[in-house]
Parts: sequence; structure tokens; C-alpha cells
Amino acid sequence: ELKKLLDEFHYADIAEILDELNLEQAVYIIKLLDSDTTSDILTELDEDNREKILKNLSAKEIAEEVEELDTDDAADIILELPEARQQAVIAQIEDEAHKAEIAELLTYDENTAGSLMAKELVKVYETWTVAGCMRRIRGQAEEVTRVHSIYVVNKEEKLIGRLSLKDLIVAKNEQKIADIVKVNVDYVNVEEDVEDVAKIMAKYDLEAIPVVDENKTLLGRITIDDIVDVLKEEADKDYQMAAGITGDVDSDDSILELTRARLPWLFLGLVGGIGAFLIMEGFESLFTGKAVILFFFTPLIAAMAGNVGVQSSAIIVQGLANDDVRGSVNSRLIKEMLLAALNGVILAIFLFLFVWAFKGELNTALAISVSLVAVIIVAGLIGTFVPLFLNKRGIDPAIATGPFITTSNDILGILLYFWIAKMILGI
Amino acid sequence: ELKKLLDEFHYADIAEILDELNLEQAVYIIKLLDSDTTSDILTELDEDNREKILKNLSAKEIAEEVEELDTDDAADIILELPEARQQAVIAQIEDEAHKAEIAELLTYDENTAGSLMAKELVKVYETWTVAGCMRRIRGQAEEVTRVHSIYVVNKEEKLIGRLSLKDLIVAKNEQKIADIVKVNVDYVNVEEDVEDVAKIMAKYDLEAIPVVDENKTLLGRITIDDIVDVLKEEADKDYQMAAGITGDVDSDDSILELTRARLPWLFLGLVGGIGAFLIMEGFESLFTGKAVILFFFTPLIAAMAGNVGVQSSAIIVQGLANDDVRGSVNSRLIKEMLLAALNGVILAIFLFLFVWAFKGELNTALAISVSLVAVIIVAGLIGTFVPLFLNKRGIDPAIATGPFITTSNDILGILLYFWIAKMILGI
Ligand SMILES: [Mg+2]
Ligand SMILES: [Mg+2]
Ligand SMILES: [Mg+2]
Ligand SMILES: [Mg+2]
Ligand SMILES: [Mg+2]
Ligand SMILES: [Mg+2]
Ligand SMILES: [Mg+2]
Ligand SMILES: [Mg+2]
Ligand SMILES: [Mg+2]
Ligand SMILES: [Mg+2]
Ligand SMILES: [Mg+2]
Ligand SMILES: [Mg+2]
Ligand SMILES: [Mg+2]
Repeated sequence: ELKKLLDEFHYADIAEILDELNLEQAVYIIKLLDSDTTSDILTELDEDNREKILKNLSAKEIAEEVEELDTDDAADIILELPEARQQAVIAQIEDEAHKAEIAELLTYDENTAGSLMAKELVKVYETWTVAGCMRRIRGQAEEVTRVHSIYVVNKEEKLIGRLSLKDLIVAKNEQKIADIVKVNVDYVNVEEDVEDVAKIMAKYDLEAIPVVDENKTLLGRITIDDIVDVLKEEADKDYQMAAGITGDVDSDDSILELTRARLPWLFLGLVGGIGAFLIMEGFESLFTGKAVILFFFTPLIAAMAGNVGVQSSAIIVQGLANDDVRGSVNSRLIKEMLLAALNGVILAIFLFLFVWAFKGELNTALAISVSLVAVIIVAGLIGTFVPLFLNKRGIDPAIATGPFITTSNDILGILLYFWIAKMILGI
Repeated sequence: ELKKLLDEFHYADIAEILDELNLEQAVYIIKLLDSDTTSDILTELDEDNREKILKNLSAKEIAEEVEELDTDDAADIILELPEARQQAVIAQIEDEAHKAEIAELLTYDENTAGSLMAKELVKVYETWTVAGCMRRIRGQAEEVTRVHSIYVVNKEEKLIGRLSLKDLIVAKNEQKIADIVKVNVDYVNVEEDVEDVAKIMAKYDLEAIPVVDENKTLLGRITIDDIVDVLKEEADKDYQMAAGITGDVDSDDSILELTRARLPWLFLGLVGGIGAFLIMEGFESLFTGKAVILFFFTPLIAAMAGNVGVQSSAIIVQGLANDDVRGSVNSRLIKEMLLAALNGVILAIFLFLFVWAFKGELNTALAISVSLVAVIIVAGLIGTFVPLFLNKRGIDPAIATGPFITTSNDILGILLYFWIAKMILGI
């Protein structure tokens, strides 16, 4: 009766339920239900849970699940298995065509169009007629969950255009495909980066895009539902990176997993803090009379340097991701300098008035405020320059924001602050 | 010849070009091209540029553009106009049906399914036959860019199911729609939050979803391309919020716009820094002999409190957004306490060894390290609690991460640090 009950649910909902259960219960249910449902459930499970459940299934059982899946999802599941099991599972796949297609998908690099595409698509030859085409599509379409576009190829299997089902329905039976094909078709190379594929599909509002090799041979297609998942994962990853968390963890992960993701960045902060300590100790001679107050403002200086650095780097990182950072590095830096100067002066006036009113020391107030402006400008410039520099070097600029920028800005800000204040106060 | 040249481009590409040109040039091109192209270009322009260009067009000209657009895009453009112009433009729309549909869309609240849906869809009645249906669809489909699903309604216009074009093609001509309709159709209420609509479409891999009112009357449909844009905007907004930037700016915005987005958060940091100053001044009596070194570690303490707070809040904010924060608030806090304690102890051991080796003062090293552990635990708890609390109160927890958490953790961390160190050192 449990089986009957679960049959009423969508597989994505069952996956959510399984994510809540313990391993034995989850494995029990996976073995209970038919593999046409469980295969879909597997694709929707939390990665950690899927790994555990697959450990409890034999190669034969996994092969049966994989047999039911589209090639893209099948390849994803197999790739999560340990190397040795991968071969065992593939060997157990009965459908030879399906096996070959999955094996092909396993050869493409992670984060390329090839790693995201499926072999399932509807393909027609330009020489066919509309009537013949409809007949063949009825056959092919049964294997393809959603048709999206129909891809038109020539006899060398090269992509020459596309058709929608709507176009076919509207066309006359005796027309040749070559006469009604839309040759203006977007496509991507199999080695294209997935984030670029996502940008293209978002820009042109595509629901599917064909994938070709360098000879324009049609290899597969990528559908928007998988792109939606990519966008979500990338956004989550960048958000975590900015917060000083690596490794795509989630709040339900174990304390050890979370420590592995968080501790390295905290350690960076610790090293930075020790740097700040060494700097302050170097200025210990200032520890006389009225200058002592300078030391009490170091947290303020460090906080402002960190905040400005994170703001400016976040804007640049996001601009780079959206391809809308234009103009030269110099013009960027000049703009950030003006922006930081404007913000810095406004903030410094407040700080000046506070210190003056509170302490009645004009010179000290001036020294602290002027250095604040300098610190903010430098922090803004570093926040702008570092991601641009990393990007030029081919390194993901997203690592530049968060702890990395706050730590370097903390140290540099404090150093600069004491230098300038010392100069102004003439001590 | 410019016109001929631009005719070769996709409207999204022309929009990118126009974003680079100055206003006069952009307006010139918009007036040069036919409104079936320019209307699409307008929808893809940067919001700031669109606003400026629309200022240069008459109500009549805008109405002509809007006339060419799908109702959802038409409504979006009209909503960006000043109140007074909105009525002028609507009055100039010639197609009465289109005008009424746009007027309806204008009535839905921002961030609801209604604000995102289009009235364009293919609708059939359950009483029709497959053959009759195909005939009618040929008519309706011309107005609809992409068919996605065909929605089946009863004679009261209530949604009862859906069909794919594939289903229709495979069915026999004389069959009744009622016999082949798939009644298991996902739909959303017109007042549903757009982020929830996005979650549903992502979860069930939908390319379009019908929108209904509380009587299940079919009102419109939302397509995945618009959801992709929503997901991107939300991710960008949350990323900026975490970096202390409000107002959805981009790197090309003016210095004044960027200042408006950044300065308030910097000001918060300034106030926090002044708070830290007051605390340190309150502990001025410690400024004797060996305890002076305590002051040199305040940037380290503040940085660690900030970093831990941002990490733990980011995990919770993201977990809340993905609906996977389960269990009670207490269990969350206990987990974070254990996690922070583990990280804190590891970091404190390093710091202890450094201070001990460097300064040779066991007690001071102990005091600083023990307070570091306490500060990290409290920072983690605050970072966990604040977003959970805001979320319970119906406030977007995303504002909790970034400057908000770092500032409060800076102050509290420093206060705690001096308290504990003072106690341990017995001064
Ligand atoms: Mg894959
Ligand atoms: Mg788009
Ligand atoms: Mg669009
Ligand atoms: Mg797929
Ligand atoms: Mg990225
Ligand atoms: Mg996980
Ligand atoms: Mg900080
Ligand atoms: Mg709208
Ligand atoms: Mg999905
Ligand atoms: Mg999926
Ligand atoms: Mg739309
Ligand atoms: Mg949000
Ligand atoms: Mg803008």
C-alpha cells in the first residue's frame, strides 16, 4: 500500500521525502518501487544521499536504473560512482545503443557543453518531406520527453537548421524539409563552457540548444531545465565563496564537512590578524599621551577597509560574470577612486566631528579622518584591481571577494592609517 | 544601409550595441528600425537606457512598440513609465483585445505570478475533437511565439488539464480532447510569489506553467525564459546584499547611484567602528605593562568574529532560500555552536602558540586564545540566529549577512574579548 501511495506523487516530491528518511528506509523504498520511477527519483536526490543509496545497490541494480534515464542523467549518475564501479555498471546496461551513448557522454570534460547535453533529440534530414517527417517524428518523439525543436541535418549529419512542431503542423504534407527549415539556428560547440551556454540560452530565450563538434556534426542537445540547475548551483557557489565558504556545502552537511569548507578561510583571517598585530606593535612607540587614541580606532579602520573592498570587488566580480565590465582597467580604477573618495570624505566628516566633539582634539580628529579617506580609497582600488587582475590571469575572480579582500585590506588599511596619522601628528 | 546591416542581427544583440551608444544614436536607431524589431530590442535594453530612450518617444510611438509585444513584456514596459504617461500610452493602443489584456496585467502586484505571466497561450475546450483542435490551434498558435503546452479548459474557462503538441499529433483525429487530456497539470495561483513559482518550475522541470485565480479560471501562463531572468536578478540582488550594496546597481551605473547603494552600509560600519572605539576606551585602564598587547589583537578578534558570522549567516540564508533548513532553531544553534567551537579551538591553538612563542607570556597567550574561542562561538550563534529570526518575522533574511552581521559581531566580539581577557588576567 506504501507503493500505491507513493505512485500518486511526483518523483521530485518522493526524492524530497527520501532525503528526510534514514538510509535503510530510503533504500527499502528505492528497491520497492519500479525502476522507471526510482531512476527519476535518484536524479533529484541530494548528492550525499544518492551516493549512500547507490553504495547499497548492486551494479546490476544501478544499471537497471540508468537504463530508464535520459543519457545526460544516466552519465551524471555513473560519473558519481567510484572509477571501478563505473565500468561494472556500464557493462551491465543491456540496450547497446543506450550504452554507447552514455559511454560517449562520459568522455566529455566537466563544465563543458558535452557534460550537460543529452543524446535524446528529434532529428530529420533535409531531403525528407513533411509527411515522411511527421511519420518518423511520431517514432522518435516517443523516446524524447519533450520535443522542443526538431533539428535538421544534411546527409553528413551536419546541423543545417531547425523546425518547431508548430512549423510542421502548419506546413503542407508534400513540402520538402529543405524548403521550410529555419537555417538561423543557435548552437554551441561541445567544448563550450557551461556558464557561457547558460548565457547564450538566457540571452536568446532558448528552451533547448543543439550541441555540435568542430565540423558542425550534431552531437546532442542541452535543455533549459538543466541550465536552470546550473545557474542555481553557480549562484550558490559564488554566494558561498563571497562568504568565505568553499566546496558547495549546505546547511545539512556534517560538522566536519562544514569545517573543511570554512576553516581555511578563517585561518587566512587569523594570519591577517597576526599581521595587523605585528603592524600595531611596530607602532608601539606612538603609545604616548594623546596618540593612544589612535589604537582605539583600528577596528573602525579595518572594518571600513574591509567593507569598501568587498563592495567594490563584488560589483566587479558580478560585472565580469555578466560580461558588462567595459572600458580599460585604468578607467575602472579612476571611477572607483572617485567613488571611494566621495564616500570616504562624507564618512570622514562624520568621524572628524565625532572625535573633535568627543575628545576636543582637533589634530587627532584630523589625522584619523584624513587617514580614513586614504584607507577607503586604497581599499576601493584593491577591491577593483584584484578581481580584474585574476580574471585576466584566467582565475575565477569570485574568489577575490569576501575573506581574501577583507584580510588584505585589514592589514594594508591599518598600516596606511598609522603611517598617515603619524605623519600628520608629526610624532 | 545601416538598417539592412542591423536586420541581420538578433534583437538581443542589437540591444547590446545600443547599450554602448549614446542616447541620440540609440534613439535614432530605434526610430529607424521597424517596430516589430525595436519592440523586442526595447525589452532587452539595460533598464536605465530604456528609461532614457522612452523619454524621447511620444506616447503614440511607445504604443506602437507595445502593440508588437507579448502582453507580459508590454505591461513591463508600461509599468516603467511615469504614472501619467502610462494612461496616455494605453489609450493609444489600437488593438482593443490587446489593450484590455495589458490593462489587466497592470493590475497585478509586483513579484506575484500575475506580474510575470503573459496572456498569450493556446487554449482548447475539453469538448472539442482532436481534428477541430488542430484546426483552431493553427489559428491561435500564430499569435503565440512558442506553444509549450496546450491548456484544456471546461466551458467555465476552468483549467482541467494540458496536452502537448506531441500528444495531439499522436492522437486520432476523431478522439475527444477530454479523452486524451492529461489532468495532472501543475499550475500556480496568480498571487503566488515569483520566487516560489521559480522553485516549482525548477523542481518539476517545467518550461511553462499556467496561472489561475482562486476559482481555477485560466488567466495566463509563465514561461521559463522569464523565470531564468528572475533567478538571475534574485541571485545578483542577494550577492550584492551580502556585500553591502542595495538597490540592484551595476558596474556601469553613475558614481551617485553607486554611492546611494553603498554609503548607507559603510555608514553602518562607521557607527560600529565608533562603538568599538568606545568599548576600547572603556578598557583604557588595562593600558599598563603587559596587557597593552591585548589592544594589538583587536583587529584579529574583530576580523574573526566578522568572518565566522558571515559564514554561518550565509549558510542559513541560502538554506532558507532553498527551503532546506529543517529542524528546530535550537538544534541549529547547537550544531553551529559545536562547529564554531571546533573551528575556534583549532584557530586558538595556533594563536596561542604564536603569542607564546613570540612574546613568551603564557598567561597573555592563554587569555587571548580563550577569548578567541568564545568570540567565535558567539559570532557563529549570532550569524545563525539573526537570519532565522528575521525569516520568522517575515523579513528577507538576506539582509542579515554582510555588513550587518560583521558590524554587530565586531562590537560584540571586542567587548567579549576584553571582558574575558581581563578576567583571565585578573586585572
Ligand atoms: Mg552530465
Ligand atoms: Mg532572456
Ligand atoms: Mg526575454
Ligand atoms: Mg536533462
Ligand atoms: Mg562562477
Ligand atoms: Mg550536501
Ligand atoms: Mg572586518
Ligand atoms: Mg510583468
Ligand atoms: Mg530541475
Ligand atoms: Mg531535472
Ligand atoms: Mg515573456
Ligand atoms: Mg531573495
Ligand atoms: Mg543599472
